[in-house]
Amino acid sequence: MAHEATRVLLDESRIPRTWYNIVADLPAPPPPPLHPGTGRPVGPEDLAPLFPMELIAQEAGAERFVPIPDDVRDVYRLWRPTPLIRARRLERALGTPARIYYKYEGGSPSGSHKANTAVPQAHYNAREGIRRLTTETGAGQWGTALAFACAQYGLECEIWMVRASHDQKPHRRSLMGVYGATVHASPSPLTRAGEAILAGDPDGPGSLGIAISEAVEVAAGADDTRYALGSVLNHVLMHQTVIGEEALEQLAAFGETPDLIVGCTGGGSNFAGLAFPFLREKLAGRIAPEIRAVEPAACPSFTRGTYAYDFGDTAGLTPLLKMHTLGHGFVPDPIHAGGLRYHGMSPLLSHLYELGMFGAVARSQTECFEAGVRFARTEGIVPAPEPAHAVAEAIAEALRCKESGEPKVILTALCGHGHFDLAAYDRYLSGEMRDFTLPQERIDAALAALPVR
Amino acid sequence: MAHEATRVLLDESRIPRTWYNIVADLPAPPPPPLHPGTGRPVGPEDLAPLFPMELIAQEAGAERFVPIPDDVRDVYRLWRPTPLIRARRLERALGTPARIYYKYEGGSPSGSHKANTAVPQAHYNAREGIRRLTTETGAGQWGTALAFACAQYGLECEIWMVRASHDQKPHRRSLMGVYGATVHASPSPLTRAGEAILAGDPDGPGSLGIAISEAVEVAAGADDTRYALGSVLNHVLMHQTVIGEEALEQLAAFGETPDLIVGCTGGGSNFAGLAFPFLREKLAGRIAPEIRAVEPAACPSFTRGTYAYDFGDTAGLTPLLKMHTLGHGFVPDPIHAGGLRYHGMSPLLSHLYELGMFGAVARSQTECFEAGVRFARTEGIVPAPEPAHAVAEAIAEALRCKESGEPKVILTALCGHGHFDLAAYDRYLSGEMRDFTLPQERIDAALAALPVR
Repeated sequence: MAHEATRVLLDESRIPRTWYNIVADLPAPPPPPLHPGTGRPVGPEDLAPLFPMELIAQEAGAERFVPIPDDVRDVYRLWRPTPLIRARRLERALGTPARIYYKYEGGSPSGSHKANTAVPQAHYNAREGIRRLTTETGAGQWGTALAFACAQYGLECEIWMVRASHDQKPHRRSLMGVYGATVHASPSPLTRAGEAILAGDPDGPGSLGIAISEAVEVAAGADDTRYALGSVLNHVLMHQTVIGEEALEQLAAFGETPDLIVGCTGGGSNFAGLAFPFLREKLAGRIAPEIRAVEPAACPSFTRGTYAYDFGDTAGLTPLLKMHTLGHGFVPDPIHAGGLRYHGMSPLLSHLYELGMFGAVARSQTECFEAGVRFARTEGIVPAPEPAHAVAEAIAEALRCKESGEPKVILTALCGHGHFDLAAYDRYLSGEMRDFTLPQERIDAALAALPVR
Repeated sequence: MAHEATRVLLDESRIPRTWYNIVADLPAPPPPPLHPGTGRPVGPEDLAPLFPMELIAQEAGAERFVPIPDDVRDVYRLWRPTPLIRARRLERALGTPARIYYKYEGGSPSGSHKANTAVPQAHYNAREGIRRLTTETGAGQWGTALAFACAQYGLECEIWMVRASHDQKPHRRSLMGVYGATVHASPSPLTRAGEAILAGDPDGPGSLGIAISEAVEVAAGADDTRYALGSVLNHVLMHQTVIGEEALEQLAAFGETPDLIVGCTGGGSNFAGLAFPFLREKLAGRIAPEIRAVEPAACPSFTRGTYAYDFGDTAGLTPLLKMHTLGHGFVPDPIHAGGLRYHGMSPLLSHLYELGMFGAVARSQTECFEAGVRFARTEGIVPAPEPAHAVAEAIAEALRCKESGEPKVILTALCGHGHFDLAAYDRYLSGEMRDFTLPQERIDAALAALPVR
């Protein structure tokens, strides 16, 4: 009886054979990225120094289903399909009539969902003869995933890691080294973008926006090198839809239909990966779940940002992206969910949000760590601070169900484990963690510097 | 076609319903533990201050199959059955005709196989009205597992952590804290055993033997408190047989019969857990695999120790155990595989070794880390330093197969991931790791202090 199960596993033959491109099902595609100089939509030729042609094609593609190369499915086999788990012990501890399901992505080699897109990105680059990939990483999850993927394809991997994380998370750095990657603290003296920042502030903590500038600069300057991005872009979100496709099948095996889907959003790829296949079914009228993004109160691009064209990085090297943004000059307070500390948001998700296809809420970090501890003590897995946002929202909803008596089916994605984030849990448990207030003036000041389009 | 698979998963209905007690199938049981004062076999009344009655019964039991309580199977569901994975990418990189399979236990909440026995130990203690468990931990895997298990049963958990690890592995300590446990650096001023050591050496790094003495002393001194051990004892090894039972079924699903089974040995529970069910089949004449234990060259109890009665701890508080030992005063060099730094060996495994039921080899730590890096770059998972010993042996055998052309089927257990051991990998990659030589005089000196029985 599947509905009595705690975990539903799928055989590796059930690894999806296609990624789902939600653009095919939208009334209009998202507004295109613009060239900051000309103001015109960027074309493949503008992106060619940064990305392999196949990914450029996927970025602009409108095909509903994109075949996953056999070779990529073969690497996915190392950890996919991932389990869908019913949080029975958490439900019991909460005393809720709600049924909570979580899709667990922390069993990947890198410990998070990021490997789902790192592998195809490495695959396409290798197939097009690229020798080296550059990227940035904040908390380290994306850098680790790309380092792993590059090891699978014999690619060199060079990573600019936000200095604050580089210094505070030496183990993440070591893990990238185990996979053979080279890791630089960012800002670094190796790039013009890094040098410019260092000149103004030699001891600055760095930011994701700066690290992106550095990795992009190096990729653009070498023929055999391309750049890889771990979130935000359409093709990255599409690669993550393996999460939702599997979850659809697994939730059906539990005999369930979702009432609420919650996911955390930084750049948006984890949330999109879970939600898009369910949105497809919703658009087709087969299910009707409410869908909700959870973002950190310290970096609330959906709930307090604006929808406008902005740069994806700090130095202004990327195309202009129409997205929910706090301004490319906005530096979020140092919350521990490093993967959610991004000033912008995926343009595709931003477009869907404007279309009213999902809602968003913001949560403070202490309530997320409280939820993380509660989850660990019942379900065993310690959530990374990023998915702890989704867990906090799921728990809050389950407690509302306790009040109302509604037996809602709540689905969330636990996109990574927190074994690299235990210093943060320690701060929480010792009472040293604090929440940040974000005065409206700080947002207003950053938004005042938006490029005018 | 199952034999084309990379991973064989089992549905949770396939979690074993019984543990396997190999004592039932031996020509003679292992020599009993002796009371150090009287020299007579210890009885249940001697153990009652330390363990719940059900575990005391299991320790001395001779029933072939012991039912796993439903409630324990229910907690196992959080991560069991664990996958059996064919290391296709490693095989390819080695160019070997051998087929390498690994049973992966790192997906448990605590990241290792230790949870398999922590959960039933917490269960039986809770059922008998115990309020608190004490234990020791070295590298932290056992302490983490027991902390998790105690959280599941509402028990208090108090852990003495070897000071060297306590100071070097703050994240392990934090993880135990997330599960609600209290962690003390050992030697601690909280016990007579700890105070005595501190008086002689206030800044000593501690050892597993000392930490055991402290945890035992506290448990023995309080009616509502018992002690839990993570390896060595018969009941602990028996609980781990879920690993081998699942692997038997999964290897059959691959259509394979093992030629060689390798596992790492510290106290022996991981090795026994994998090997015992296969030994049962071997004793019954159904399969004929070679079975091989791998121990660290810096702590070689099988290959360079003696088979004699000795204390399980440093202070001499435990019963005398007939086992392969380097002497209870032996302090292993500080290799990074903390879980294998134990002067003794499971008495049951020692007995089997004397019966010629398996062989043993020793490996240096740098060759183990080399194997760990090779494994990570091909299979994705970073092995903990302990199973890296087994991986090193599996790779060495696969390379011998490459010479001989033999397509051997090699099975090993990857009993934990190395995400808490990245500082050690960093030392290896930077060339700073060294191997230790172990002069015979050091072993002789420690063995000279064996209690005479």
